[in-house]
Amino acid sequence: MSSLVGMSKPEQNKNTSQNAVAKSAISPQRTEDFPEWYQQVVKAADMAENSEVRGCMVIKPWGYGVWELIQSQLDKMFKATGHKNAYFPLLIPVSYMEKEAKHVEGFATECAVVTHHRLEAQKNPDGSVKMVPSGELSEPFIIRPTSETIIGAAFSRWVRSYRDLPLLINQWCNVMRWEMRPRLFLRTAEFLWQEGHTAHETADEALQETHQMLRVYEKFATEHLALPVIVGEKTESERFPGALNTLCIESMVQDRKAVQAGTSHFLGQNFAKACEIKFESRNGAQDFAWTTSWGVSTRLIGTLIMTHADDDGMVLPPRVAPVHVVIVPVIPKDDVRDKILEASSQFAKKLSQKTFFERNIEVEIDKRDENGGVKNWEWIKKGVPIRIEIGPRDLEKNQIALARRDREHRQKDFIAMDEAIEKVPQILEEIQNKLLEKAKTFRDLNMVKIDDFETFKKFFTPQNEAKPEIHGGFALCHWAGSVEDENKLKQEFKVTIRCVPFDDAFKEDGKCFLTSKASSKRVIFAKSY
Amino acid sequence: MSSLVGMSKPEQNKNTSQNAVAKSAISPQRTEDFPEWYQQVVKAADMAENSEVRGCMVIKPWGYGVWELIQSQLDKMFKATGHKNAYFPLLIPVSYMEKEAKHVEGFATECAVVTHHRLEAQKNPDGSVKMVPSGELSEPFIIRPTSETIIGAAFSRWVRSYRDLPLLINQWCNVMRWEMRPRLFLRTAEFLWQEGHTAHETADEALQETHQMLRVYEKFATEHLALPVIVGEKTESERFPGALNTLCIESMVQDRKAVQAGTSHFLGQNFAKACEIKFESRNGAQDFAWTTSWGVSTRLIGTLIMTHADDDGMVLPPRVAPVHVVIVPVIPKDDVRDKILEASSQFAKKLSQKTFFERNIEVEIDKRDENGGVKNWEWIKKGVPIRIEIGPRDLEKNQIALARRDREHRQKDFIAMDEAIEKVPQILEEIQNKLLEKAKTFRDLNMVKIDDFETFKKFFTPQNEAKPEIHGGFALCHWAGSVEDENKLKQEFKVTIRCVPFDDAFKEDGKCFLTSKASSKRVIFAKSY
Repeated sequence: MSSLVGMSKPEQNKNTSQNAVAKSAISPQRTEDFPEWYQQVVKAADMAENSEVRGCMVIKPWGYGVWELIQSQLDKMFKATGHKNAYFPLLIPVSYMEKEAKHVEGFATECAVVTHHRLEAQKNPDGSVKMVPSGELSEPFIIRPTSETIIGAAFSRWVRSYRDLPLLINQWCNVMRWEMRPRLFLRTAEFLWQEGHTAHETADEALQETHQMLRVYEKFATEHLALPVIVGEKTESERFPGALNTLCIESMVQDRKAVQAGTSHFLGQNFAKACEIKFESRNGAQDFAWTTSWGVSTRLIGTLIMTHADDDGMVLPPRVAPVHVVIVPVIPKDDVRDKILEASSQFAKKLSQKTFFERNIEVEIDKRDENGGVKNWEWIKKGVPIRIEIGPRDLEKNQIALARRDREHRQKDFIAMDEAIEKVPQILEEIQNKLLEKAKTFRDLNMVKIDDFETFKKFFTPQNEAKPEIHGGFALCHWAGSVEDENKLKQEFKVTIRCVPFDDAFKEDGKCFLTSKASSKRVIFAKSY
Repeated sequence: MSSLVGMSKPEQNKNTSQNAVAKSAISPQRTEDFPEWYQQVVKAADMAENSEVRGCMVIKPWGYGVWELIQSQLDKMFKATGHKNAYFPLLIPVSYMEKEAKHVEGFATECAVVTHHRLEAQKNPDGSVKMVPSGELSEPFIIRPTSETIIGAAFSRWVRSYRDLPLLINQWCNVMRWEMRPRLFLRTAEFLWQEGHTAHETADEALQETHQMLRVYEKFATEHLALPVIVGEKTESERFPGALNTLCIESMVQDRKAVQAGTSHFLGQNFAKACEIKFESRNGAQDFAWTTSWGVSTRLIGTLIMTHADDDGMVLPPRVAPVHVVIVPVIPKDDVRDKILEASSQFAKKLSQKTFFERNIEVEIDKRDENGGVKNWEWIKKGVPIRIEIGPRDLEKNQIALARRDREHRQKDFIAMDEAIEKVPQILEEIQNKLLEKAKTFRDLNMVKIDDFETFKKFFTPQNEAKPEIHGGFALCHWAGSVEDENKLKQEFKVTIRCVPFDDAFKEDGKCFLTSKASSKRVIFAKSY
């Protein structure tokens, strides 16, 4: 990715020399061990770490900064479509979950159960004291894995008449699903998310909402996160427990697996019946409401990393970068320090009055007493879009040296200060667009039409036994198989139908590659996180 | 509070006529039954409600809107003082809590304990199926009541050298304390809050941070929430479990009780030792860090209501009002509807380009098909600062009719449209200041110097047996008693030392009202929530 002449390398690679590994800040590289590369990028970018609580992560300030931007930008989009935020209890009585049969079945195997409401000191045989659970609850609670039932209970109190509809609510919160194979951001026992919950008068309106929010997610993923997602619907076996239909945005990451980046569920009247969300209709009858739910989570950050990061660390789309521009003052001698720092601060002040996508340009001056190479590499690994150096010679010429995260790191543009201030927003826009373009090209190159079982089999069989995670990518196949057929493919190849795309481009007549039955569109098969 | 000639009254008071109750939208009034009045205001303003999960509330959109404003405004202040947000696990291993003896003792009796990680279907004798806890955990977890120990564990990984200090972190999250006597916003089993956690090289720096954040809270409470708080420190018996000192802001609400609205703790090296937060000091030795923690919660909203609301409902300080101005179009006949709505929308558009305290003026047009009286009363009860009516006659005169929540409701100013747009930010400022002034006057009137036990006793003895919540207020007393003396007063009068104020005004030589020992300043005794 990068040629590094003239830049000192991060510690871990100091002893390596001419081989491929030496040329990147992250070891191993993507092609060597993708899962381990991912862990190392998260670490090098200082975004999150595992905690001692199994499956639960600590989101560090740099990672949380990305989440804050995701949150505030999505929140605006939710509010612009008429939704309001509210907050509902963390704990759900087990009896609530039982109200919807498929729902409880879907979440029963992975939920944290609260059974007591205090701790009591107990003496061990050796005389030491231990705190043990005490005050057993008459009914246990689970920590919300999702909130359909508890929000449904509130909706049943709030909705009386068709005049109370639609009810358009969103909640930002933490949820818990006891994951057995956790992975930072992508699959953790606790994660942060938003869950939209809405109730409507008619099935049509609820369906319209389900689609509208899917398109909000598509727009956000594409334009803000530079993720070229495919929108479509899940097959029956991949639906949310209790939903009549689940729509999704699917993204391809750099090991060519799929990540489900967001879902929007049409719940029909299932939860309305389970939770008694009834209303007096226009003709005076008692009807059950039609509900939807939709969510995205901190998993988006995992998708972001797996899509854009490279062998030197994270690469942040400028719209969700906590810092757009870092200024590294170059101070060869102590007697120029004050002058350089003053000029850096002046430049930063002017630059931060400019805006990029509804936000003032976020500028940080790295004043730490470290050498420039070390500082530069830290910011490269964190994925900051633009690095600017200001040294004594630059000052003389009234210029700055600008490096971009989307180019070779040592490539510098020397730009007059005033010009640079005008140009930065435009460069950020360029980087934003380029990241999307690059991800799209990669995705498209690894999306293949497959029409027979042998090719399908070969496509999903690892070409290198040592790296089982590397495989073909997205297989676009005609499909008319049964749920059992789907399960068979899942067991044999760890492959599922990620989505049945809505785009007309996938529509064409053909025959199912497995059953040879007629089919009118292609679906996407892929391995997934 | 309000004279209501010419305005129809809310439903619940329709049948009352000349008596005092009839003159207010909230029943009972404050002086009749303060606790019940409070519940009724929360309900009438549609801010929150109890859920079926004992002690856990649902924060409804209007209440959550206030929390969002509190959050975003405080967050800016935290960031301006160098703090960064992060996120830590919800679950805390019991062994972590055990590390600090006083800490676990302080929270053991009120924590939710997670003991299992799945549910299993169990057949009842009658054939029905029930989901029961399964998959017992080898070590139980508690849901965080506060995060000193889990964040301490992270800090012990992050801090290696004095160069890593200070570490300035904040977390916005939910916490859980199993409250036996919950009250919406003020005391709930689950609540939302922020908890700042910092680590420092020296005791001095940590103390400075503790005081700095107390002053941030003071500024926020005073200038944003219009709460005239007293800043000071707690006595030993009222300290946070594990802290060396607890600083606080104390507020007086309208039944003259105190609410602790925010706390800032100097933790010394207690938690650093318990969690092993060690660093290499400037002289090469291994030292324990000095830590602080500080927090405010959704309890601020309870304080806000109890301080500013009146017998007609909520009164919102404009800085934290989700809507600053509501426009109620007056449409006497259908044929003027379009014209009035168009004019309202034009006016709203212009007005929302103006700003009040770093935020665009938030304007809502109430287009609902309801009569004007009903709409007006809803907005009065919600506490919106300004209501504006636009009708056909106003349109002719190019004017609007403006009513303020801090005045008699029927009082209307007729103002030319263009002038109104210029004037609204100024009126909001006036209301903001007036609310603070009013609360301060009330507080000062009910803060009394007391120098002998008999007067103290009388001050805290209810004057009306039927209303035990009404009592004197804040007693400013010289104090040189022991912890045992404090406990005795607490048991006898349900009164505690709310704080030892920092303000010089409280300094004067005198004698303890109980022990007659010499004292150099007065402390504040009060009943509290």
